[in-house]
Amino acid sequence: MIFSYNQLFEFTKGILMQIGCPEKDALLAADVLLSADLRGVDSHGVARLSGYVRLWEKGRINPIPQIKIVHETPSTAVVDGDGGLGLVVAPYAMQVAIDKAKNAGTGWVSVKHSNHYGIAGYHAMMALEHDMIGISLTNASPLVSPTFSKERLLGTNPISVAIPADKQPPFVADMATTTAANGKLEILQRKNLDAPLGWVQDKEGHPTADSNGVKKGGALLPLGGDREHGSHKGYALGAIVDIFSAVLSGANYGPWVPPFVAFLDPDPNPVGEGIGHFFGAMRVDAFRPADEFKSHMDNWIERFRKAETTPGHEKVIIPGDPERELEAERKKSGIPLLAPVVEDLKNLGERFGVSFS
Amino acid sequence: MIFSYNQLFEFTKGILMQIGCPEKDALLAADVLLSADLRGVDSHGVARLSGYVRLWEKGRINPIPQIKIVHETPSTAVVDGDGGLGLVVAPYAMQVAIDKAKNAGTGWVSVKHSNHYGIAGYHAMMALEHDMIGISLTNASPLVSPTFSKERLLGTNPISVAIPADKQPPFVADMATTTAANGKLEILQRKNLDAPLGWVQDKEGHPTADSNGVKKGGALLPLGGDREHGSHKGYALGAIVDIFSAVLSGANYGPWVPPFVAFLDPDPNPVGEGIGHFFGAMRVDAFRPADEFKSHMDNWIERFRKAETTPGHEKVIIPGDPERELEAERKKSGIPLLAPVVEDLKNLGERFGVSFS
Repeated sequence: MIFSYNQLFEFTKGILMQIGCPEKDALLAADVLLSADLRGVDSHGVARLSGYVRLWEKGRINPIPQIKIVHETPSTAVVDGDGGLGLVVAPYAMQVAIDKAKNAGTGWVSVKHSNHYGIAGYHAMMALEHDMIGISLTNASPLVSPTFSKERLLGTNPISVAIPADKQPPFVADMATTTAANGKLEILQRKNLDAPLGWVQDKEGHPTADSNGVKKGGALLPLGGDREHGSHKGYALGAIVDIFSAVLSGANYGPWVPPFVAFLDPDPNPVGEGIGHFFGAMRVDAFRPADEFKSHMDNWIERFRKAETTPGHEKVIIPGDPERELEAERKKSGIPLLAPVVEDLKNLGERFGVSFS
Repeated sequence: MIFSYNQLFEFTKGILMQIGCPEKDALLAADVLLSADLRGVDSHGVARLSGYVRLWEKGRINPIPQIKIVHETPSTAVVDGDGGLGLVVAPYAMQVAIDKAKNAGTGWVSVKHSNHYGIAGYHAMMALEHDMIGISLTNASPLVSPTFSKERLLGTNPISVAIPADKQPPFVADMATTTAANGKLEILQRKNLDAPLGWVQDKEGHPTADSNGVKKGGALLPLGGDREHGSHKGYALGAIVDIFSAVLSGANYGPWVPPFVAFLDPDPNPVGEGIGHFFGAMRVDAFRPADEFKSHMDNWIERFRKAETTPGHEKVIIPGDPERELEAERKKSGIPLLAPVVEDLKNLGERFGVSFS
């Protein structure tokens, strides 16, 4: 089933206003949430809307947060999200990073007391129009086991870096620090297919091809998959994201990060407030003239794009290419949603008196 | 064969002074180079000394560089290494980042016209004694093929992040953005063993278990190993390191990075100067009080270290643990060198009149 962007946007905005968000925040949050659907990260888009509503019902999301800077230096700040939607807190904090960069060359903002913030790439890309490099990190519910750990201690802790070019579209990396994102497992689960080894371990800590392994008490694996293929590196990357997002800001880290699903309660003895994010903005002309930088980025991108390929592949992909192409297509032709998601949204609409169809 | 740290240090310093380095620079470079041997990254230590000398013979290393800041803002700088040893240029640039952080909260330095800088971790760890987080990136000779590329377009482009703790030793990640570092392949080559699939592709771009595959015109693979296991993420990470190190500074990037081996000439049409590095320093008290941060880092480290393990493993390792343990041991018991390395160093000593034994 295909829905237009505008239809999903109005619906999302309507629901968020019904749970008490001011219109301005509802507009922004809908824009962030739906950028995931446009860019093909369907697991992080409108499919999560009822999850956010359930967190609000539990009192775990504050629809009218007083987001504020609680500490700062010329190039840094800590932002307290006051329990607001990450979809609103994150753009606020990224804007602080951008404003800092205007004066100090770079800006770096660590955020506490927030919630899930949609796709990492949205916030990193905010820097592009200012001729800045944008960086966006967040921690998340513990679903990932470090190398040699049976316990789940980290989230999928994504890293996004957006870098402007001139004639070429920007370079936009946006990746979980796991071998595969949870959304890819969900696709296999629906089709009743196995997962490649290296994605999941079972409850006992053994590698497994069971795509339901995480639901059965297992864990996602860090990028690399196993020690021989460098999973200690994926683990280190996820750990760095966790520390920058939460130990720097005063949010919860590691196994203490509150779960996204409302049916699991947060740890009764938290080590911080809410979940954490980390944002960076670097003015490219804090290093060299922006036109010089961007023309070399064009050269970088063109050289990589035209590289000779391995057998069976047509081109070398520049990070951000597939998402940008999908975004153009879905803006025009609409966003496909799965039947259970449509059902879920219809129920949500009926409950809050917001029409969905 | 085992050699004391002091013996190798005096020898290295002596050779570097013979090629014209001022004593102060020779002392620093020897310290950086040998930190690799102490920490078990044997491929990046004294075994490379004769490689640096061969580059000097070709006029590709300037022993008396005028290293200087060529552009700056409150939190950023570009450093021109003037063709000096990366072993000397990198600590200079990291110190600039640390000094910037003292005033602006953070400091970020991109470096051009440099050479190989030893292990990334040395420079990142310079931040620790200042209660700062240190970051160190560098590009390197193109030996790595991006996902779907037959061509080698990236170096092993490492990422190091050093984070201070209180009672616990610091968290120090130091990793190539490939599945495996070249040094690990060399170990397999000497033993005539195959490499695991996912480390190397052959000249035609097919996965191969041939541990000599790179020497035969193949390539190292980005962390992840293949698309199914997330090699596009390792490729993106290596690309980010390349862009921060070289496109920001004006160094050579991608396939234009000058090779470390002196028998291969640099590209006759360079896109920049020398190789590039990128350094960051963030004062932890630019975010929250340092004692608070460090005590939470202790808690983070202790929680991960005591996690329940997968079958057959004794403990979850904190990044930096193995290197620190080896460093303590090798400082006491000496540094083992392979016979061909010893032979090479003896020849170097005879040629320059510096005693080795």
